[in-house]
Amino acid sequence: MSQAKGLVVLAYSGGLDTSCILVWLKEQGYDVIAYLANIGQEEDFEKARMKALSLGAKKVYIEDLRREFVEEFIWPAVQAGALYEDRYLLGTSLARPCIAQKQMEIALREEAQFVSHGATGKGNDQIRFELTYYALSPQIQIIAPWRMPEFYTRFRGRSDLMEYAKDHGIPVPVTPSNPWSMDENLMHISYEGGILENPKNHPPSAIYKKTRDPATAPDCPDTLEIEFKKGVPVKVTNKKDGAVYHTSLELFIYLNEIAGKHGVGRIDIVENRFIGMKSRGIYETPAGTLLHRAHLDLEAFTADREVRNIKRGLATRFAELVYNGFWFSPEGEFIRHCIDHSQDLVEGKVQLSVLKGNVYILGRESRQSLYNEELVSMDVQGSYEPTDATGFININSLRLKEYHRLPSKVRLAQN
Amino acid sequence: MSQAKGLVVLAYSGGLDTSCILVWLKEQGYDVIAYLANIGQEEDFEKARMKALSLGAKKVYIEDLRREFVEEFIWPAVQAGALYEDRYLLGTSLARPCIAQKQMEIALREEAQFVSHGATGKGNDQIRFELTYYALSPQIQIIAPWRMPEFYTRFRGRSDLMEYAKDHGIPVPVTPSNPWSMDENLMHISYEGGILENPKNHPPSAIYKKTRDPATAPDCPDTLEIEFKKGVPVKVTNKKDGAVYHTSLELFIYLNEIAGKHGVGRIDIVENRFIGMKSRGIYETPAGTLLHRAHLDLEAFTADREVRNIKRGLATRFAELVYNGFWFSPEGEFIRHCIDHSQDLVEGKVQLSVLKGNVYILGRESRQSLYNEELVSMDVQGSYEPTDATGFININSLRLKEYHRLPSKVRLAQN
Amino acid sequence: MSQAKGLVVLAYSGGLDTSCILVWLKEQGYDVIAYLANIGQEEDFEKARMKALSLGAKKVYIEDLRREFVEEFIWPAVQAGALYEDRYLLGTSLARPCIAQKQMEIALREEAQFVSHGATGKGNDQIRFELTYYALSPQIQIIAPWRMPEFYTRFRGRSDLMEYAKDHGIPVPVTPSNPWSMDENLMHISYEGGILENPKNHPPSAIYKKTRDPATAPDCPDTLEIEFKKGVPVKVTNKKDGAVYHTSLELFIYLNEIAGKHGVGRIDIVENRFIGMKSRGIYETPAGTLLHRAHLDLEAFTADREVRNIKRGLATRFAELVYNGFWFSPEGEFIRHCIDHSQDLVEGKVQLSVLKGNVYILGRESRQSLYNEELVSMDVQGSYEPTDATGFININSLRLKEYHRLPSKVRLAQN
Amino acid sequence: MSQAKGLVVLAYSGGLDTSCILVWLKEQGYDVIAYLANIGQEEDFEKARMKALSLGAKKVYIEDLRREFVEEFIWPAVQAGALYEDRYLLGTSLARPCIAQKQMEIALREEAQFVSHGATGKGNDQIRFELTYYALSPQIQIIAPWRMPEFYTRFRGRSDLMEYAKDHGIPVPVTPSNPWSMDENLMHISYEGGILENPKNHPPSAIYKKTRDPATAPDCPDTLEIEFKKGVPVKVTNKKDGAVYHTSLELFIYLNEIAGKHGVGRIDIVENRFIGMKSRGIYETPAGTLLHRAHLDLEAFTADREVRNIKRGLATRFAELVYNGFWFSPEGEFIRHCIDHSQDLVEGKVQLSVLKGNVYILGRESRQSLYNEELVSMDVQGSYEPTDATGFININSLRLKEYHRLPSKVRLAQN
Repeated sequence: MSQAKGLVVLAYSGGLDTSCILVWLKEQGYDVIAYLANIGQEEDFEKARMKALSLGAKKVYIEDLRREFVEEFIWPAVQAGALYEDRYLLGTSLARPCIAQKQMEIALREEAQFVSHGATGKGNDQIRFELTYYALSPQIQIIAPWRMPEFYTRFRGRSDLMEYAKDHGIPVPVTPSNPWSMDENLMHISYEGGILENPKNHPPSAIYKKTRDPATAPDCPDTLEIEFKKGVPVKVTNKKDGAVYHTSLELFIYLNEIAGKHGVGRIDIVENRFIGMKSRGIYETPAGTLLHRAHLDLEAFTADREVRNIKRGLATRFAELVYNGFWFSPEGEFIRHCIDHSQDLVEGKVQLSVLKGNVYILGRESRQSLYNEELVSMDVQGSYEPTDATGFININSLRLKEYHRLPSKVRLAQN
Repeated sequence: MSQAKGLVVLAYSGGLDTSCILVWLKEQGYDVIAYLANIGQEEDFEKARMKALSLGAKKVYIEDLRREFVEEFIWPAVQAGALYEDRYLLGTSLARPCIAQKQMEIALREEAQFVSHGATGKGNDQIRFELTYYALSPQIQIIAPWRMPEFYTRFRGRSDLMEYAKDHGIPVPVTPSNPWSMDENLMHISYEGGILENPKNHPPSAIYKKTRDPATAPDCPDTLEIEFKKGVPVKVTNKKDGAVYHTSLELFIYLNEIAGKHGVGRIDIVENRFIGMKSRGIYETPAGTLLHRAHLDLEAFTADREVRNIKRGLATRFAELVYNGFWFSPEGEFIRHCIDHSQDLVEGKVQLSVLKGNVYILGRESRQSLYNEELVSMDVQGSYEPTDATGFININSLRLKEYHRLPSKVRLAQN
Repeated sequence: MSQAKGLVVLAYSGGLDTSCILVWLKEQGYDVIAYLANIGQEEDFEKARMKALSLGAKKVYIEDLRREFVEEFIWPAVQAGALYEDRYLLGTSLARPCIAQKQMEIALREEAQFVSHGATGKGNDQIRFELTYYALSPQIQIIAPWRMPEFYTRFRGRSDLMEYAKDHGIPVPVTPSNPWSMDENLMHISYEGGILENPKNHPPSAIYKKTRDPATAPDCPDTLEIEFKKGVPVKVTNKKDGAVYHTSLELFIYLNEIAGKHGVGRIDIVENRFIGMKSRGIYETPAGTLLHRAHLDLEAFTADREVRNIKRGLATRFAELVYNGFWFSPEGEFIRHCIDHSQDLVEGKVQLSVLKGNVYILGRESRQSLYNEELVSMDVQGSYEPTDATGFININSLRLKEYHRLPSKVRLAQN
Repeated sequence: MSQAKGLVVLAYSGGLDTSCILVWLKEQGYDVIAYLANIGQEEDFEKARMKALSLGAKKVYIEDLRREFVEEFIWPAVQAGALYEDRYLLGTSLARPCIAQKQMEIALREEAQFVSHGATGKGNDQIRFELTYYALSPQIQIIAPWRMPEFYTRFRGRSDLMEYAKDHGIPVPVTPSNPWSMDENLMHISYEGGILENPKNHPPSAIYKKTRDPATAPDCPDTLEIEFKKGVPVKVTNKKDGAVYHTSLELFIYLNEIAGKHGVGRIDIVENRFIGMKSRGIYETPAGTLLHRAHLDLEAFTADREVRNIKRGLATRFAELVYNGFWFSPEGEFIRHCIDHSQDLVEGKVQLSVLKGNVYILGRESRQSLYNEELVSMDVQGSYEPTDATGFININSLRLKEYHRLPSKVRLAQN
């Protein structure tokens, strides 16, 4: 029988927090549907399903969103060459709208009045989830326990959750928790909080899960050829062993494997959250880092200078809006459309080697490139008239000469 | 006795090209003063002086511009975090106005009517030299032999130069020339042309002079602490051996040594020249790469998000104008002033390790940072009210909800 | 004797709303200091003082901020050429931080724990006031009655306020209220709400207070000469009657008079509030409009093209941040500094005529201008070589020719 | 019989300059086809045809490009809301690629090896013509007499041309030439040169041809309703007399008539030419000015704030590239595509009155607008929670409070 307060679709992770939230929501009088997205994290999904059901979930949805995540969220970010604040490849930011979109689909299908999530009240994820909810279904109601005083004053720390878990038959983790929190998906793992909050503390070398330590990574590189069409990878070939991957998900997983093996994609940064505070994060983004470099190389090779300049301005905005949770927004749609259009000619092959934490571009080729070997050659005059450059320089100097003429301008001659 | 056509100050490198130009200029009826700037390239300056005199230079100036190059050109680029087209740290671009400025000083002092250089007619350097000349002294006249038909039709290749050299008593290099050209200064070495012109060709592993091969670089990292004030490094400490460097030039040279030892700073890119053609270049920028990373980390740590956003837009323009030769220009002055102002609070220390071609940020600290450990802490509620985030999200969703209302908007519910 | 809840400094306007708030605050147990800023609005300040005291204000501050408003807030906006969303000259946005800054000074002097204002919960002004409070004194506590359910559910409309006023001895306006609301200061008057909320409704012609109807404005223009230094007006001369004004406040008032007489500065726009909703406003900004035009003309005349380009990007951000309430912010300080620096050479005189709602630029002169009559002259060849333009065009066409070469490019010839 | 040097398609205006050029080209040994574009200028085209033939043109093309000019060049500029340097509506800039495109079509059809034009060597038009030629047909050869020493040293001024004309049977104008030059098309007339070169000189009141003097324009306004779809006008209704116009060319001509009658669209500016010199121009753009205002109003009314922000950045680039002659370029194509996409929802009606040099927006309506009267209403609480604004402000103040915390920050309290 349905409970009085209505039906909630909860973004469930299988962990302690959302398990407690599930039980707490029922305690508050809601029916709860648990929804667990598979976006490539390491997880025993069946165990999580059983756990949710045992905690009283009315139904459990486990959705494999990996291909969708790669093709609809990661690929546009690769096309954009998106970097938040010059460094962060947006691994978590891209996953949130993907997860929340499916959650809204379920909520609509199940005619739920509520959705809920376990994101905290200081972070970006709450915003990314909820802006997606509202954008896709403005009438939805959101239950965000970590922002509700009745919840967060009751659960002031992990020990409160542990105790509540014990009291309510929620299985508790047997291993002690790491002194930091972590979030994983196909694109990256982020580590933050706890001992990492002191920005001076060096990250423990054992923290990393997705990449090997570059210091102990193989001494011998892998050499890959990545083929792009319209700014996204369509084929990966390992020149060493001849392995070939064609489909989006497969090739992305393979690139994660290779890049991870060689320790590619670790960063330790302080970034600015949307709410205006600075936070420190450690990220591992193996395939994402590799693809960012390869795409950048091919784009610079094929695209017109001015088109790329304009597109770069758009990409900066894109990264910012994705970080801030505006994937589903008028500007998000608009920018993705423009960036996609800028990629029409970004096709060709990039060869690169992967070694000791690094990606080295070795060469590139494309039938669409604006690179003209003959034009640039030091040995070929061709149709290029060097005297034209004289005119070009003289005209460009006009403005500078005029500026020098100003009475207020200090002249070198007067030094 | 002075010759009929007047006096030329020639930017002289000591190499085959500018030696031939020196002799050719005299042949054309000019008096020639040879000017050789020491901006950190490997060179036997005294030998070059003797050579210039023996070729008929009326006078030779050899100017050590290394400290000036670091403090007045490289430091502003570090403050800016300047990258041309997302990758190039502007090693050559920064050197040109430094060299040309001194050349103009000499021309004015010597009352020369002409300056000359050996840059080719398809490249960026001719523009960087000449815009600097014109900006600092608009009435100067420029002799650019590689753009003069009487010169470039006479010297169609290296063999013509070699022959001319032999005929005119110009010492010719005994070693065969590399199948590429190269330009070196304190900040970087660039390689381009010849076999590198085919963008698909992998660069020969033996090409690099300033950095060791990351594959064979030491297995053991160096750990450095770099202290910044106003966005420029003021102290470098090697945490391993305790070495400390304070002055600009010394610490820059030391960072080149350490970063070079570990193979940091190699890139292989296709870029867009100012004249509109794409060209492929291989660059080594050891200290520059290391400082770029360290500065970026500290800036993100200390600077306000919005100030940094605005500054980043300025830095993109800065990189472009430096690349294009507009260091001395109204907009160059303006942007440097603004960027400098943005660095007032960028002070503190960054710790990093250097290993196998990579720079890993380990931690950072500053008394000026806007990072607030207490505010960001997951365990401290502090003055932060989680309920505020609800209002923040709801207000941010207003626009999205309105957009969803539009008749033209496809709704998820209707799928 | 001081009341239990503490001391509030209330931004008091003398009108019905803030009079009710004053009484209501006392009712809630606060001591209230009424603060009324004179920023050029039409007001009987002494009457307002008496009224506030009679309503129980512990003290009344009436501060003449007009000169400060002009010099510290309007002048930077003139330098910036700031337009929000291409049209709005920020008349209200600029006044808010000016008013709130003085309010904070009083609060600190009086050791008040609270500040309060009468701005509504859907508008921009609440944000502008409060961000200023927090920026200048983060520990201040804010009472915003129109966002407090106990207040806004009690006062659901004007009639509730009227009734409360009658019940509490608050003098009520004898004239019926306009069916719109209005905000006035030295720079502008804004009209919004009520019948104006329907964006299709034409504004009543009788609405305007600061400008005459252009249709019935004088048939004879006034001709002014405005002299600028560093981008701000320092002297205004009426060429018709010889009137001259030198000081900031005086000349601004005079320009309001002249521009108002000729019906200059009316706009009717829909704009986007910071909170994300669109609203319709009617604005009158006589002197502001005139100065915007004059400054733009002189800036274009004197400033270097590229400096002005960069500055324009900054000005767009400036307008946005001022509109959104971030006058006192790191980015506000930074941008004002940069814009101020861009104005070093913006000096000279502009002549213009004012007629029937328009400002016509007639001519301009400056000893700092980069305009070079000789260079531009069609009849003077001067130092300009037309053949240089050939080289300039040819080099600029390189990129276009390369683009045409692409296999994917549709060629005109194949049509 | 064909002449030795080949065939030239000359952009012929019918005036003295291009008539002399036509004869001079034949004198140099070329066959000449005269091409005269009708882009809305006042001209006796048949007389011009006869004249060209009588001067020896092998063939004459007179092409009516007016509709093409409006739909393919003016409309994209209206969508963009393009203003060069904040004021110039690009009347000449838009016409040039339109004219040159047709010229290339003729050159290809006629298998001409050359094209020629009469633009001078200091202006923008030479660049706009020639970049269009090269972009559309890179192999074309250009004859630009005003940049050829053999031409410009022979014709040093108007009197040389007059004399040449007399000597070669070229009809010379009977009326004395204005002391300025002028260029007219459907969109605007520009005046520059001669007495206008002194930027201090007021423009003579008799200079204007396309607009009446606002001072003597009708005292009674016209009230128009303009309907837009996808950002371009599709219907104009005169509310006074009920006149209605539907097709692009018709409605544009009608708007020119109405706006011209009321003196709308005069500006006097100093602008920066692409080659880097400042020049002064007087422009009349009646319909263009009116449409710019109307489109801006509707766009602000309908478009999302952030989409419009991004689009505005693109429009600034668009204006710059059009001014500089890059209509046909990779970036031109890209930006037009993006801007076009931004206009999908810009539909609805704008009502405005035209009076004494001004356009006053009166109201607007659209079924696609993001304006929500209920949401914005001061009297309706609706779904909006005022307390949300508290959270929004508090979160936005976080950054400001942190900044205030800095040791280097001067605090108000310490003043």
